[in-house]
Amino acid sequence: MSTRSSTGTSTSTTSWVAGATGSAHDVDNLPYAAATWPGSATPRLVTRIGDHAVDLAAAGAGTRWADLLAAPGLDPLLAAGPEAWAGVRGWLTDLLTDEQAARDVVLLPVDDLVLHLPFTVGDFVDFYASEHHATNVGRIFRPDGDALLPNWRHLPVGYHGRSGSVVVSGTPVRRPCGQRKAPDEPLPSYGPSARLDIEAELGFVVGRGVPLGERVPTSGFADHVFGVVGVNDWSARDVQAWEYVPLGPHLGKSFATTVAGWVTPLAALEPARVPLPGQDPAVLPYLTESADWGLDVEIEVELAGEVVSRPPYRLMYWSPAQMLAHLTVNGASLRPGDLFASGTVSGPERDQRGSLLELSWGGREPFTAGGRERTFLEDGDEVVLRYSAPGAFGRIALGEVRGTILPALP
Amino acid sequence: MSTRSSTGTSTSTTSWVAGATGSAHDVDNLPYAAATWPGSATPRLVTRIGDHAVDLAAAGAGTRWADLLAAPGLDPLLAAGPEAWAGVRGWLTDLLTDEQAARDVVLLPVDDLVLHLPFTVGDFVDFYASEHHATNVGRIFRPDGDALLPNWRHLPVGYHGRSGSVVVSGTPVRRPCGQRKAPDEPLPSYGPSARLDIEAELGFVVGRGVPLGERVPTSGFADHVFGVVGVNDWSARDVQAWEYVPLGPHLGKSFATTVAGWVTPLAALEPARVPLPGQDPAVLPYLTESADWGLDVEIEVELAGEVVSRPPYRLMYWSPAQMLAHLTVNGASLRPGDLFASGTVSGPERDQRGSLLELSWGGREPFTAGGRERTFLEDGDEVVLRYSAPGAFGRIALGEVRGTILPALP
Repeated sequence: MSTRSSTGTSTSTTSWVAGATGSAHDVDNLPYAAATWPGSATPRLVTRIGDHAVDLAAAGAGTRWADLLAAPGLDPLLAAGPEAWAGVRGWLTDLLTDEQAARDVVLLPVDDLVLHLPFTVGDFVDFYASEHHATNVGRIFRPDGDALLPNWRHLPVGYHGRSGSVVVSGTPVRRPCGQRKAPDEPLPSYGPSARLDIEAELGFVVGRGVPLGERVPTSGFADHVFGVVGVNDWSARDVQAWEYVPLGPHLGKSFATTVAGWVTPLAALEPARVPLPGQDPAVLPYLTESADWGLDVEIEVELAGEVVSRPPYRLMYWSPAQMLAHLTVNGASLRPGDLFASGTVSGPERDQRGSLLELSWGGREPFTAGGRERTFLEDGDEVVLRYSAPGAFGRIALGEVRGTILPALP
Repeated sequence: MSTRSSTGTSTSTTSWVAGATGSAHDVDNLPYAAATWPGSATPRLVTRIGDHAVDLAAAGAGTRWADLLAAPGLDPLLAAGPEAWAGVRGWLTDLLTDEQAARDVVLLPVDDLVLHLPFTVGDFVDFYASEHHATNVGRIFRPDGDALLPNWRHLPVGYHGRSGSVVVSGTPVRRPCGQRKAPDEPLPSYGPSARLDIEAELGFVVGRGVPLGERVPTSGFADHVFGVVGVNDWSARDVQAWEYVPLGPHLGKSFATTVAGWVTPLAALEPARVPLPGQDPAVLPYLTESADWGLDVEIEVELAGEVVSRPPYRLMYWSPAQMLAHLTVNGASLRPGDLFASGTVSGPERDQRGSLLELSWGGREPFTAGGRERTFLEDGDEVVLRYSAPGAFGRIALGEVRGTILPALP
């Protein structure tokens, strides 16, 4: 493979890193993480190439990006904006494809890394952008009513989640306690959630901010969004069902949201851009897309060692550019590190549903995982979300999202 | 007045600062702000005494609190915890009542200060804790149903707001645009909110944090909450009414939330503590109060130069200790700077309602302010929320919350 990078000087796109070429972590991927490893004291920025990582503080010393790359996480790079994002990616591509550089770059085995939250999460907004998910939830909870509420096709419905409870992949998740009341119970009771669930989502990491009072049009998406992360928005359905009127989910969601340790830059997803499946009725002008920001990302949901679902992100009704335009249309400011997520990704088939609520149809239709019938999460369950997408040279892997359920506190 | 402070050495509680004694800013108050003034470059921590402010970085240099007080805002002091809060307050009380200190302390006229956001806002949770407000809203929007929803008396209903849109008193508020649809309209439209409203609230500033997975019992309230701020949670009712099902308010609230520049420490509100008006049915054990955290704070709502309402905080159904216990019962972490607010404070009388939605009964019963009939906010309107409470020596004033409406962007 040989081409000229638009921002760099290399004429090769074949990496000198053994095992990288043709892998899911070739030079068309190059995600970022904040990691420690044996001998490192504080988290440092790294990128991944093949089964190795590059210490960006070391590799970037003396470059014009040195200050951004010496940080303990992505915050300064996020704030630096799209020119810097492209510049760093171009430099990295050159570094990892230039045989001359091989002498100087120290490679760390990726298995030696401990990943940390890669950026400081500002505000966290979670949308509800999958028509199949929203329809399933409507049918489960309102079997006699319209599956979709009247506003759903007119705006990307969303709400604020708790940014302080966002944790990195691998962090154990303790089963939350809370208040819940089944419809047939006269009074609420307190105790561990009995309907603990996952939500397989894709998250978008805001880079360059916007002051209060301004708006980001759909055409400004790539100027303000740095990249994507897998998201598991753990949900206590029993707590949520009792608390959520009229102000929306709160305790049922605020105990933990797991994000991938690796942030995939938007640039790596260029080959994954696809048109939306279609919007009817037509959206208001401020939500009209100027370019395709549907994304052909495939998700794999593994529960207890078994893949139970493969939600297709390409079928999402609302695009992330529309989500961002909606989020800011009232003048809400954006800060580097703000995170917004798609909401549960579900497809039309049973094995494409992104939550156990849907997979078990409200707990009434158990499914099989790990050799047993299942409805909601059990203590000790491990959930792994894996993400992949078409890259420039083949499929790229996005960072996985992993979590194991610990029993509730007594 | 003469007494011995439990933490200091002074034997007097009479301040040497001219005009302080007997004022609403006597030594029983001592709120904190982050301020600049002519000649100062970056924000510095100050306290207020009478009509003057003390530069805490200067006054605290050489004390054991020097590092906390040299910060550009409250963040380090918040994180330092209740021993430090009491220590600083004791030292300040000594300083401002010890005639010997008068030679060394530089007083700044409070009118010379420009106040900045006094702390970095972590997560912002807004509750809905006034029975009168929730009942009014229920009657306005669901005239034929139960005014209160089934969960309301069992848990303090709340949701996450946008922390990035929290601004300090005095910041102009631009009328937001957004999507709205009246019930008699076939389709939604886009434009400036026509039902822009206030919500007069009291906010609670979290100091010492709690790791993910732990809980704060009601008895832990004063270990984790540093102080209070007045809050105006500006609301676009038309946007909110269309968007809020099923995930709660989003764009209708996320364009601006104004907080007071002065944070009043919880210690100053000791004399304001009162029992709650009463809870029926009895709450679940995790919400049982171990001490009274009702607060006899009086609020004054001024619109266009006229006081239109006096909401009484002492009638709130849920206490802030219950709000905090609920907020963390699922293991949600707390960070210094997390902010939670009460929701609109309303009393049983018309002139005790904390929102224009209630004052105008959904816009159907105009009221008078500034010599004219009013329903919702007009461009150019200035709203001022003033707060006072019984202090140790008389009534103390909390920081006011001020904002003027700018016309929507074209």
